[in-house]
Amino acid sequence: MTPEEFRAAAHELVDWIADYRAAIPGRPVRSEVAPGWVRARLEGDPPEAAERLADLIEDLDDVVVPGITQTQSPGYYAWFPANASLESVLGDIAASGLGALGITWQSAPAVTEMEELVTDWLRELCGLSDSWVGSIHDTASTACLVSMLVARERATDLSEDRGGLQAEPAPLIVYASTQAHSSVPKAVLLAGFGRDNLRLIPVDPVTLAMDTDQLREEMAADAAAGRRPAAVIASMGTTGTTAFDPLERIVEIAAEHGAWVHVDAAMAGSALLLPECRPLFAGIEGADSFGWNPHKWMGTILDCSLLYVRDVELLVRVFSTNPSYLRSSSDGEVTQFKDWGIPLGRRFRAIKLWFHLRLAGAEAIRHRLRRDLAHAQWLAAQIEATVGWEVCAPVTLQTVCVRHVPDGVDDPEALDRHQQEWAERVNATGRAFITPALVEGRWIVRLSIGAEATQRPDVEALWALCQESALPDA
Amino acid sequence: MTPEEFRAAAHELVDWIADYRAAIPGRPVRSEVAPGWVRARLEGDPPEAAERLADLIEDLDDVVVPGITQTQSPGYYAWFPANASLESVLGDIAASGLGALGITWQSAPAVTEMEELVTDWLRELCGLSDSWVGSIHDTASTACLVSMLVARERATDLSEDRGGLQAEPAPLIVYASTQAHSSVPKAVLLAGFGRDNLRLIPVDPVTLAMDTDQLREEMAADAAAGRRPAAVIASMGTTGTTAFDPLERIVEIAAEHGAWVHVDAAMAGSALLLPECRPLFAGIEGADSFGWNPHKWMGTILDCSLLYVRDVELLVRVFSTNPSYLRSSSDGEVTQFKDWGIPLGRRFRAIKLWFHLRLAGAEAIRHRLRRDLAHAQWLAAQIEATVGWEVCAPVTLQTVCVRHVPDGVDDPEALDRHQQEWAERVNATGRAFITPALVEGRWIVRLSIGAEATQRPDVEALWALCQESALPDA
Repeated sequence: MTPEEFRAAAHELVDWIADYRAAIPGRPVRSEVAPGWVRARLEGDPPEAAERLADLIEDLDDVVVPGITQTQSPGYYAWFPANASLESVLGDIAASGLGALGITWQSAPAVTEMEELVTDWLRELCGLSDSWVGSIHDTASTACLVSMLVARERATDLSEDRGGLQAEPAPLIVYASTQAHSSVPKAVLLAGFGRDNLRLIPVDPVTLAMDTDQLREEMAADAAAGRRPAAVIASMGTTGTTAFDPLERIVEIAAEHGAWVHVDAAMAGSALLLPECRPLFAGIEGADSFGWNPHKWMGTILDCSLLYVRDVELLVRVFSTNPSYLRSSSDGEVTQFKDWGIPLGRRFRAIKLWFHLRLAGAEAIRHRLRRDLAHAQWLAAQIEATVGWEVCAPVTLQTVCVRHVPDGVDDPEALDRHQQEWAERVNATGRAFITPALVEGRWIVRLSIGAEATQRPDVEALWALCQESALPDA
Repeated sequence: MTPEEFRAAAHELVDWIADYRAAIPGRPVRSEVAPGWVRARLEGDPPEAAERLADLIEDLDDVVVPGITQTQSPGYYAWFPANASLESVLGDIAASGLGALGITWQSAPAVTEMEELVTDWLRELCGLSDSWVGSIHDTASTACLVSMLVARERATDLSEDRGGLQAEPAPLIVYASTQAHSSVPKAVLLAGFGRDNLRLIPVDPVTLAMDTDQLREEMAADAAAGRRPAAVIASMGTTGTTAFDPLERIVEIAAEHGAWVHVDAAMAGSALLLPECRPLFAGIEGADSFGWNPHKWMGTILDCSLLYVRDVELLVRVFSTNPSYLRSSSDGEVTQFKDWGIPLGRRFRAIKLWFHLRLAGAEAIRHRLRRDLAHAQWLAAQIEATVGWEVCAPVTLQTVCVRHVPDGVDDPEALDRHQQEWAERVNATGRAFITPALVEGRWIVRLSIGAEATQRPDVEALWALCQESALPDA
C-alpha cells in the first residue's frame, strides 16, 4: 500500500471512527452476542487476494461493534473505568503511523526519551518525590510480576545469577490481602514462590482494607520459623470496593523484615492527580515499587501501565540481557528500557500519554476526576436516603457498592440471588452495564462511575433504572 | 474531545502520516541525534492547559522524526526487518478508535474471537497442523518466558500450586545454543531456573546451528547426575546469521528426557508462509511451543508476536487467575485469553493482523518474501564473485553475513576493526543502515534485507556503497 492509498483509506477510516464514537450513546452497553457469534460471521479461508477497505468497514459495523462491550458509553459502570480518550487515540494513531522500533535507545531515541519525559510528568502531577523512576508496561499484571521478580532477586541476592530459586534454602514468603486483585496471586505463582508461600491476610470487616495486626503477626511467625518474608503487596483501591490498605503501617512492618513493598494502584492511582486524595496514599514514599494505569480512570487508551521503582540499578540487574559483569543501569549515557522489564521490543506507548496530557491539559483531567467523585457522593447519598437500599462499603473514590434488601426478605442466599438478578435486569435493558461481585462472602453490586462520557443526568438515570430493576413488579 | 473535534484532528494527523511515510526514502536511515537531544527539545513542565494539535505536529516533524531510526526506509538493513505495513497500520488505527477493553470474553467477544480466527489463519498459511492453538503476545521475549514458565510447571507437576520452585529437589536444566537470542537466557533466568542450570550448547562452526551431539551428551550427563532436563529452546533463524538448529534431532533427544521443546522463530517464522522454506522447520510438529513475530519480516506492525502451543489445558492451568480447583481451559464455551499469558488487559491486536491479511492478501505477502530471498541470493553472488569479500555464513533466508578482507591485511584484530569501521562509514552516509555483529568471536557485518520498501536498485546501491566504504581511499 502506497502512502497515497493509505491517505485515502485512513481518511475513510477516521470518518468511520468519529461516526462510531458519536453513535455509542445509542448502542446497548453490554455486548449481547452469543459465544461463537463473531467468529461465525468472520469465518472463511485465509484471504489470498487483496480485499477492499469497504468490505472490512462493513464487518466493523455489522460484527465487530456489536461484538464489543461499549466501555466508552455514558452507561458503562462495570468492572472499572476503561476510558480511551480521543486525545490519546490521536497519540496512538501517531504511534502506528510512525511505526518506530523500540529495541535499544539507538533504534529510536525518541521512544526512550519521551517515555522518560512523560513518566516524569506523571510523577510530578501525582506529587511523588523524584526518587521514583518510571517506565511503561502493558498492564498492572505485568508490572506486578516485574516487581515480584525484583523482590525475589533482592531477597536472594540475585539467585538468578547462580542456582536459581531452587538453590535457596529458606522459603521466601509474600503477603497480600484477601481483597488483592487476582493478578497478584498470579504474579506470585509465576515468579515461582508457590501458593504455599503466599499469605492472604484478612481484611477489616468494615473498611475491607488489610488487617495490619494480622500482617505483623504472620510476618513475625514466618521469620521466627526461619522463613524469609520477601515482599508485601499493598492494594490501593481494591477492585471490589476501592478499599485502601494502610500503607504507612505496611511499610513500617515490612521494613522490620527487609521485605519489598509493591503498591498496586491500578485503577485508583489516577486519584493521586488530585491533591485532596493524596492522604489515601500516605506512606507511599516508603514503598519500593508502585504501579498504576493511566489506561483506566485517567483515560489514556489501553495499554498504558506505569511502574515506578526507586532502585533502578537492581531492576536493571534483574532484567538486563547482558551478562552480569557487563550490567550497568544506563549503558553509559542512555537508558535502555529493554533492561527494565520483560519484552525487548517496545511500541511507542509514551506518545499516547504525551498527546493526552498536551491536548487535554492536566487541569481538565483533574476536573473530570473531581466530577466523578462528586457523582459517586451524590449517588451514595440517594442510596443512603432510600428505604431498602444500603451502601455496603466506604465510598472512597468513584465506586459505589450497593445492596437492595426488599421488604421482608432476610434469607442471605435469597438476598445474594436478588442482587445478581436485579443487576442482570439493569444490564438487559442495554441502557447501563453494572457488575455484581462477591466480596468477603456476600454478593453486592458495584456501580463504578468514571466513564469519560458519564454526566450527572446519566447517573440520575442509572439510579432510576436500579430502583425499577430491583422492584420490577412495583 | 468530541467525536467531531476528533474527526478534524484525525484527518490532519493522517495527512501528516501519509506525508511522513512518503518522505522516508529521503531521510537519513539511522537516527543521528545525540543522547538527550530529544528530551531537551520536549522538556518543560507537565502541560496544565490544552495545547493545539498543530504544536504537537510541529514537534513530530522537528524532534520525533529525527529521533527515530527509519526502519521503514528502503535503506534499512540493520538488526532485522521491522516492517509496519500500512495495511496493518489501518488495523491498528481501527483498534485505537474502537478502544475496546479485552479482559474477559464478555468485555469484548470480538477481541477474543477475531484472535482465534487470525491465529488459525496464520497457522493454516504456515502449513502447521491443527494440533496447534495460537494467541498473540507483545514480543517473542514474552512468548519465550511464557513457554519457560509452562515448561517449569510441567517438569514439576505444577509446583506453583504447592511450595513453588524452592520445594523442588532435583535441579531443572534448560538448554539452548550459544547463538540463541539474548531474550532466551533472560527468560530462563526470570523463570527462576538460574544461570547455573542453563546450558549453552556449542554450534557447528560452519552452519552455526546447535551441535546436537553435544546436546545429547549434556542432557544424558545431567540426567545421570540426578538433574532434570526440563526444556530445550531451538532457534530457527538465529539473530546473528539466521542459522537453523536441527529441530528434528532436538525433538528426538528432548523426548528421551520428557523435556519441553520451545521453538523460537521470531524473525524467520515468516518463512513458513513459503512452502519451499518449510523443510528448514522439519520436526516442528514434535515441539511443544512455537513463537514467531508477524511484526518482523511479514510486516504486521509491532507488537504482534504469535505463540502456538499444543497443550492448552496445561497453559491455562499455569496462567489462570482462578484457583486450581476451578481451572478449565475455556470457562465453558468461551476462550479466556487472560488465562493464556501474563497480562489481564488485552489490546485489540488481532485486528491489525486481520486488516493486514485482508487488505494485502497472502499471495502478495508471499511474493514480497520471495523477492527478498532473491535479493539476498543476488547480493551473496556479487559478494562471492568479488575479490577481497567473503560471505561468512550460509545465506539461508534474507540475511547476508559478510566480511571484507583488504589485500595484505591478515591480523585478526585489524580485520575485526576494519569490519566495524567500514560499516560505520556506510551508516554515516545516511543512505543505508547496517549492523556489525560479533559471531562466535569474530566481527562480521549483517546485511538484513527485508524492509517492505527495499527494491532491487536499493540492494544494488547498498552493494556499491559497501564497496566504496570498505576501500574509502581507492
